[in-house]
Amino acid sequence: MAEEGIRVQNKQVLLKNYVSGFPKDSDMYVTSESTISLKLPEGGGSNGVVLLVKNLYLSCDPYMPLLMQNPENSDRLPFDLYPLDSPITGYGVAKVVDSRHTNFKKGDLVWGVTGWEEYSFISETEQVFKIEHTDDVPLSYYAGLLGMPGITAYAGFCDVASPKKGDKVFVSAASGAVGQIVGQFAKLMGCYVHLLKNKFGFDDAFNYKEEYFPEGIDIYFENVGGKMLDAVLLNMAIRGRIAVCGLISQYSLEKPEGVSNLEQLIFKRIRMEGFGAPDYFGEYSKFLEFVMPYIRDKKITYVEDIVEGLENGPAALVGLFTGRNVGKQIVVVARE
Amino acid sequence: MAEEGIRVQNKQVLLKNYVSGFPKDSDMYVTSESTISLKLPEGGGSNGVVLLVKNLYLSCDPYMPLLMQNPENSDRLPFDLYPLDSPITGYGVAKVVDSRHTNFKKGDLVWGVTGWEEYSFISETEQVFKIEHTDDVPLSYYAGLLGMPGITAYAGFCDVASPKKGDKVFVSAASGAVGQIVGQFAKLMGCYVHLLKNKFGFDDAFNYKEEYFPEGIDIYFENVGGKMLDAVLLNMAIRGRIAVCGLISQYSLEKPEGVSNLEQLIFKRIRMEGFGAPDYFGEYSKFLEFVMPYIRDKKITYVEDIVEGLENGPAALVGLFTGRNVGKQIVVVARE
Repeated sequence: MAEEGIRVQNKQVLLKNYVSGFPKDSDMYVTSESTISLKLPEGGGSNGVVLLVKNLYLSCDPYMPLLMQNPENSDRLPFDLYPLDSPITGYGVAKVVDSRHTNFKKGDLVWGVTGWEEYSFISETEQVFKIEHTDDVPLSYYAGLLGMPGITAYAGFCDVASPKKGDKVFVSAASGAVGQIVGQFAKLMGCYVHLLKNKFGFDDAFNYKEEYFPEGIDIYFENVGGKMLDAVLLNMAIRGRIAVCGLISQYSLEKPEGVSNLEQLIFKRIRMEGFGAPDYFGEYSKFLEFVMPYIRDKKITYVEDIVEGLENGPAALVGLFTGRNVGKQIVVVARE
Repeated sequence: MAEEGIRVQNKQVLLKNYVSGFPKDSDMYVTSESTISLKLPEGGGSNGVVLLVKNLYLSCDPYMPLLMQNPENSDRLPFDLYPLDSPITGYGVAKVVDSRHTNFKKGDLVWGVTGWEEYSFISETEQVFKIEHTDDVPLSYYAGLLGMPGITAYAGFCDVASPKKGDKVFVSAASGAVGQIVGQFAKLMGCYVHLLKNKFGFDDAFNYKEEYFPEGIDIYFENVGGKMLDAVLLNMAIRGRIAVCGLISQYSLEKPEGVSNLEQLIFKRIRMEGFGAPDYFGEYSKFLEFVMPYIRDKKITYVEDIVEGLENGPAALVGLFTGRNVGKQIVVVARE
């Protein structure tokens, strides 16, 4: 009989119901019934598992409800959805417990895609990155500023939006995980910035008559969609850029609000471009070189909203969509 | 008393009513009451007129009804609208009758922005280009294939859409002035092309289930907008490009149809970009070098729908929106 590690409890957050729109707490459930051996199975098993990690911090991200949708909607959702009664997945920070991959060894800290559970098997390591941890940044930052949301802000603003000094920049959902970084990048690059703090845009009488930038908006970092996008389109400057990061106001709707002012794309020769962080993961070390000096010089700050305990994960995730959180929402599973 | 040229009749097409949506014949009127001196006024007059031209061919273009709208709508129309009871303007081919500009002399053939009338004064020459006419291309081409519509196709396809060999290209309004050129450029560049002939897209049961390109559309050359755009968004390939040239199905509507599937921009990292030919006029000679050999080798053809007589201009323009024309709609004012 092959050697087995100690079996321990593995608390998990599983999907209970398919979701149309924003999830409720009751669309997920937490169970402590599962156990796991703290050693990789011999031979990797049939599914090619190469890492066993202990999850430390999990990231609550606005894209996650999209993965909770019914597979019947898969014609508009070109990615793998969460299966029912399986642990949901997301970005997080974890510690390697056992490894069969040459790039990772026991004790390494990593960030990347993992499960919402205490321990996870990982078979694909393209989205797992080793953390060179130093004491001057909180480890939880690798689920936010130094992880996927940070690269998202970097990709969307520094690359997709083609910023230049003096540009007028408008950021929606500017208090969120990504938006708060974009606002700071924009200021550091000498842009004028207007931040729309509420993530849905509902708090803001965004005045269709050029309230903020009478000369027009050069860059719109779009997290909201719907009516907000329609209003901003009318206020864009000639040759403006819209980096489309998220459309959070739309994900809860059975049918999205239509956007009516796309003619402005022609009238003002606007470029509107969607993007995703994974396409930029290859530039992760370049991103760190860019951002770490700013963090060490305290030129970039990052607000986190940290919830303790995996069992509080569903409520924390749901809170993203009710505006409960202030800053990047993190769930602590364990502190090493 | 300053020397004056012979005064002649100057038939004109004037705007009668502001238009919301597509124009009717009766929104314009033709008058023969105006006369003009066939010599530039001394000193250029107060409005800096530098050219007097005799108009030969006028181009009917889908953007023109936008300029017929009530100035009350000017918050969404960031360009100069046609004043009531003045000749409408557009692109055309003309012959210089008198010039005070060093680049142009009497007898030169030119294309550019002129009036819908027999003779026009021109004060701004940034949008006027000298024609080096040769007998192997019809002069009317300079109101189409070799004028603004040609540069539009070149800019939108060869630049904005970033084509590469093997790309799957979908062209709406593919029988129109621009669309028919785009389809040919795409084939010459080794792309697979599906042409949607009807300019409004109504004739085509564009099947939301990937009828044409099951692997997805790499380039959508967009002339239509609305429901067609929504359908195409679902069928775009990863990293697809949408060159937004026109949204002709929307211009007739009081309020445009909303576009609901913009989330696909994120899911598939799509770039959607509006553009306009005038931004590319500086590359006109480069465009000619590109396109002339294809025309001479008969590798590019161009279908024109030529209507005789300025008095038939309003009906020809209106016909663009009822699908009357086959190919590029031209109005002959005079044949030199």
